Amino acid sequence: MSFKTLFIHQQKKTSKEIYEQACKVLPGGVSRNTIFRQPYPQYVAQASGCYVNDIDGTQRVDFANNMASLIHGHAHPAIVEAVTEQLKKGSAYTLATEAEVRFAELMCSRNAGFEKIRFVNSGTEANMAMIKAARAFTGKPKIAKAEGAYHGTYDFAEVSQTANPANWGDIDHPNSSPVVHGTPQGVLNDVVIFPFNDIDRTIRILDQHADQIACVLIDPVPHRVGLFEGSDEFVEALYHWTRKNGALLVFDEVVTFRVNYGGAQEKYSIRPDLTAMGKIIGGGFPVGAFAGRTDVMKVLDPRESKILFPHSGTFSANPITTTAGRVAMELYDKEAIQHLNTLTKKAIFQIEEVIKLADVPVSITGAGSMFRFHLKSTPPSGYREAYQDKETSAIAGEILDYLFYTEKIMMLNTFSCMLSTAITQKEVDRLSDALLRAFRMIKPKLQNIK
Amino acid sequence: MSFKTLFIHQQKKTSKEIYEQACKVLPGGVSRNTIFRQPYPQYVAQASGCYVNDIDGTQRVDFANNMASLIHGHAHPAIVEAVTEQLKKGSAYTLATEAEVRFAELMCSRNAGFEKIRFVNSGTEANMAMIKAARAFTGKPKIAKAEGAYHGTYDFAEVSQTANPANWGDIDHPNSSPVVHGTPQGVLNDVVIFPFNDIDRTIRILDQHADQIACVLIDPVPHRVGLFEGSDEFVEALYHWTRKNGALLVFDEVVTFRVNYGGAQEKYSIRPDLTAMGKIIGGGFPVGAFAGRTDVMKVLDPRESKILFPHSGTFSANPITTTAGRVAMELYDKEAIQHLNTLTKKAIFQIEEVIKLADVPVSITGAGSMFRFHLKSTPPSGYREAYQDKETSAIAGEILDYLFYTEKIMMLNTFSCMLSTAITQKEVDRLSDALLRAFRMIKPKLQNIK
Repeated sequence: MSFKTLFIHQQKKTSKEIYEQACKVLPGGVSRNTIFRQPYPQYVAQASGCYVNDIDGTQRVDFANNMASLIHGHAHPAIVEAVTEQLKKGSAYTLATEAEVRFAELMCSRNAGFEKIRFVNSGTEANMAMIKAARAFTGKPKIAKAEGAYHGTYDFAEVSQTANPANWGDIDHPNSSPVVHGTPQGVLNDVVIFPFNDIDRTIRILDQHADQIACVLIDPVPHRVGLFEGSDEFVEALYHWTRKNGALLVFDEVVTFRVNYGGAQEKYSIRPDLTAMGKIIGGGFPVGAFAGRTDVMKVLDPRESKILFPHSGTFSANPITTTAGRVAMELYDKEAIQHLNTLTKKAIFQIEEVIKLADVPVSITGAGSMFRFHLKSTPPSGYREAYQDKETSAIAGEILDYLFYTEKIMMLNTFSCMLSTAITQKEVDRLSDALLRAFRMIKPKLQNIK
Repeated sequence: MSFKTLFIHQQKKTSKEIYEQACKVLPGGVSRNTIFRQPYPQYVAQASGCYVNDIDGTQRVDFANNMASLIHGHAHPAIVEAVTEQLKKGSAYTLATEAEVRFAELMCSRNAGFEKIRFVNSGTEANMAMIKAARAFTGKPKIAKAEGAYHGTYDFAEVSQTANPANWGDIDHPNSSPVVHGTPQGVLNDVVIFPFNDIDRTIRILDQHADQIACVLIDPVPHRVGLFEGSDEFVEALYHWTRKNGALLVFDEVVTFRVNYGGAQEKYSIRPDLTAMGKIIGGGFPVGAFAGRTDVMKVLDPRESKILFPHSGTFSANPITTTAGRVAMELYDKEAIQHLNTLTKKAIFQIEEVIKLADVPVSITGAGSMFRFHLKSTPPSGYREAYQDKETSAIAGEILDYLFYTEKIMMLNTFSCMLSTAITQKEVDRLSDALLRAFRMIKPKLQNIK
């Protein structure tokens, strides 16, 4: 087959038409449930900076950034240039590359706790490998995690991520509830669930499994729990509990690494033993990583006579991802972070004014360049408080649809914004203006919500 | 920071120097244990077609192709061109793309059993998601897999992958032996191990867990078991057992999809319910996928009122991978496959002549464009027969080192070749000539091996 035949110009189709084709080959017509929309999802023509054009001719401003993974927005010229150069030299080899070493050096230089790092292909793989490393180091089988926290799709990591009033049980002993039908009971038995930021309950729960816990896993600003920070006291209590009980404290910073130069963990007085990363560190390409203490990471070392955690991955640390990731992280320096976090603070301030003006029971939580809306006047302080019933979810969905279709604004389907450095005051103004209209529109329906 | 500063020319270093840097930030100095070499791994400068140049100035011919993942060798111009175009439009969005639909259509058109497909980021994720889908569909907790078979790094999938005489137990009841230290007992309890191609023993073992098995998982030409095909009778027996017992038959074709247009499974009279893929289908970019029956894949469908298997992935089905993958698979059409498989047959024939000429106890197994050497006169028919003791492994390692350093030939560290379409008769001749010298060199050491 000649190359030419590969590039025959495709006839222009609409999103509706492509979705009809998609339904014949993809379950539900989509590759990712997060991008599904009724009656059909939109298909992208091209994107640049903070703007995404769909094939139907609509341009939207992007506050979602591929589920918080594009810290510089779309097609950043420096990343495109570096990747284009690397492409000509190959995308993966059965040998090592300098690209992975340069990227590793950069990442380790950002946080004193990142003594060694290993790259994988996704946040899911990062959390899975980190948990396996913790088990290999401690020889213990269980993990403990916060109810409602999302850590990817590894069974153990996802237990109780979607816990709801029908299955979550007593807050003093939250159930290990499965996300996927058919999850083995053995998985549920090996995951201990605690309520985030609730020190007393958490320590009492951990104590009941003290000799069996390999690691306590938290996201320091857990998006699905409610996108509020772990309190200093809570994180310190976990740290001291793990020191006392021969367990590791491990952080999932896949989403939150953006918050500070060395991750959201910078604000605490303690450092986790291991940290998982992903999303923005890949510069827009599939990535995951976990980093931490040299003695723990040694479980991976191929030079050891007995390798406790033999681990490889065909595409891990490939030079496309490590090149794009390095350029993205070089650009995301302290100055860029401060600028973005300041802009986000201003955005939240503007939107809080809008909430007052519209006089609606809406609150905002967040950290760094991330914020999330809650349809209640007081911001929630735990997963069960942040949990939305069906009626509230439907109202949030209605606002998101209005923003998407009418105002041409993209957000995460959790009613959250994850800003990129491509966003300027202009887009922030557009967002707050649109939210004013959205809140006024939805106000009558909000009266019935607590 | 200006873009310019990112592209300051790096001072030229040697592999030894970069490895010294790498040891400060990567455990063991590597990102993937498979590419580790004593005293240090080589670092790539650039690669093209079937040739890889390291930064120390050595060019090698590549029979490894990034662990069998580059079916057209390195930097294929059609893939580079298509990816370069897509790059300018962005690499990932919180919306859908036509690229994923076109790729899905192509993949589904290659095998009547691929009714629906879902993309993920690696072979590990593909096998994990496929197993979770099987559990979700059947509601059962256990999986059954072949001793020695590699299916990625998901705990359940990797049980007994590295089984050895000290832990594998009675062949009538093979142990579930962990790969990673600290693997929970619950994982081992939920994995049933059988001996590949041994029908009677396998059926007896499966029968003991008949009501609990969600799926029987095999690689139809399992590389680490010994790279020989599952017999027709064995595969049919598994198929009929799964029909009788409400279980799924699922294939891992991450490595073997290359064997035929619709995968290695084409040769059998039956079709698996689900098939995992990865490696070559990504055109050199991180990829995984699983495909199969519409009714099973429905567990993923976001339109269902109760989604049995909620599943997303930040980088899954990104337009870079799906574009590169589609172009690679379009080029890997029936004609290209036949050409490559014929060339491989010729290579094996030539090498068998070389083995006779050198008069060494070496045999070859394989299928399609893959073959593996065994340091025994009779090819092995099971994992325990193919298993190499330390002494034999050391000799294989010596041959691989000789080929790598002296003959400048790269193979997989299992003493295997996975050819790309970039390979020609010239490289095959070079390989067989080199092997003649290698076998003559090692012959004295082979006398002591059975």
